[in-house]
Amino acid sequence: MKRELKIFKIGGGIIDHESDLQEFLRLYSEISGPKILVHGGGKGASEMMKNLGIAPKMVNGRRITDAVALDLVTMFYAGKTNKQIVVALQSHGVNALGLSGADGNVIQAVKRPVREIDYGFVGDLSEASVNTNLIHQFLMLGLTPVFCPINHDGHGQLLNTNADTIAASVAKALSKQYAVALHFCFEKRGVLTDVADENSVITKINLADYAELKESGIIADGMLPKLENAFDALQFGVDKVIIEHALYINEELKTTLCLN
Amino acid sequence: MKRELKIFKIGGGIIDHESDLQEFLRLYSEISGPKILVHGGGKGASEMMKNLGIAPKMVNGRRITDAVALDLVTMFYAGKTNKQIVVALQSHGVNALGLSGADGNVIQAVKRPVREIDYGFVGDLSEASVNTNLIHQFLMLGLTPVFCPINHDGHGQLLNTNADTIAASVAKALSKQYAVALHFCFEKRGVLTDVADENSVITKINLADYAELKESGIIADGMLPKLENAFDALQFGVDKVIIEHALYINEELKTTLCLN
Repeated sequence: MKRELKIFKIGGGIIDHESDLQEFLRLYSEISGPKILVHGGGKGASEMMKNLGIAPKMVNGRRITDAVALDLVTMFYAGKTNKQIVVALQSHGVNALGLSGADGNVIQAVKRPVREIDYGFVGDLSEASVNTNLIHQFLMLGLTPVFCPINHDGHGQLLNTNADTIAASVAKALSKQYAVALHFCFEKRGVLTDVADENSVITKINLADYAELKESGIIADGMLPKLENAFDALQFGVDKVIIEHALYINEELKTTLCLN
Repeated sequence: MKRELKIFKIGGGIIDHESDLQEFLRLYSEISGPKILVHGGGKGASEMMKNLGIAPKMVNGRRITDAVALDLVTMFYAGKTNKQIVVALQSHGVNALGLSGADGNVIQAVKRPVREIDYGFVGDLSEASVNTNLIHQFLMLGLTPVFCPINHDGHGQLLNTNADTIAASVAKALSKQYAVALHFCFEKRGVLTDVADENSVITKINLADYAELKESGIIADGMLPKLENAFDALQFGVDKVIIEHALYINEELKTTLCLN
């Protein structure tokens, strides 16, 4: 039997609210067994850019990570946010270890190829990106890896990667050794049948349910790519994917996705 | 016989010059055997503070690390500088692991007690501050720890610590298990008999020599606390302390300090 591993992902919606972040970290510290945390960015880097009078670079309405933006997101995500999380977890008795992909070469990304748009210093991940052996060693030492969304290409270039992608890639890669539960935490209690009703959580969705929910239009918009991502992870061997509210991870009401 | 361990410390003088930093890192990557790098800050944090229109807090002519300053130095030292170093070392084949003291609780500091001056969020270290077991485990995994000068108090507070102090504390703590050579790298070839003459390096100084050099006034000013620190480390079990130019670490000309 594979040992259980819990991977949690939190995003800007929590990170931008200090008291919410602290409450999540308190709850997260109560989760037993080996665990990993992946965090996204927040508004901090953009706000500092504005305060410094630097306009974000946009192409066709899309934000580009140029050298200046990369510098700032590295400072914010790998410096401020990552250490803020690590220091809080340490105070709750969790032996957190903050990591970018460059640290220990745990995640090696590839700069996104230029097609219609040059996204700049954005890192794409593949199956081979994750150094599962070193992450396993860290877990064996009782450490809780805390990943920021900054990776590298192995040739001296830092790259910015979407945190959902990092969480899913780490989950998929580690599913060979562990029974992985991947938790996407956000500001809703799960997948809702009625977005206006927080209590309309669909508690379990399998692949067949998903097809129906998509067909009927109950799952639409921003939830679609989230669930595509989730079912992709399941098909690659992740045990289950949970979609839940970051401030209620200790409660029963949430959506669990599985293949069957 | 204890295994050798080389601990290098670099400061702002190198960090502030991108090409010097890159050259140092290239040379450092050629150093064989287990090694650790400790880096200080640089002017970046102060410059960004200025650009943001924030005046540094000063008391009696001394700079105070208040909450705003701590935020910025954490971003710069733990984010930008630390990752810049890690990513470059990775590109040279060194499996660098960037660390603040909070990561894995490797260094736990104590906020400097308020006496005449409240220095703010500054962390002092003691003998018990360094988690030698975890650093040893990292070294056994073939990792090269890269310490930034940010620590924590274990109760959720980040603290800023002098990088020389971190290097000396880590060296002293690990000297129980390793034959530690502690390298202080700066912009001179070593301790000079004539500051104007780069070739006047005193290649070896023991405790008796040190007393004489101090007495005669040959060693004075800024070099005094550096050497006090160095001899303190030697008395605590560090094998040798080397004072050398960061860009000539691969050359013979340098100052080696030892007790006898």
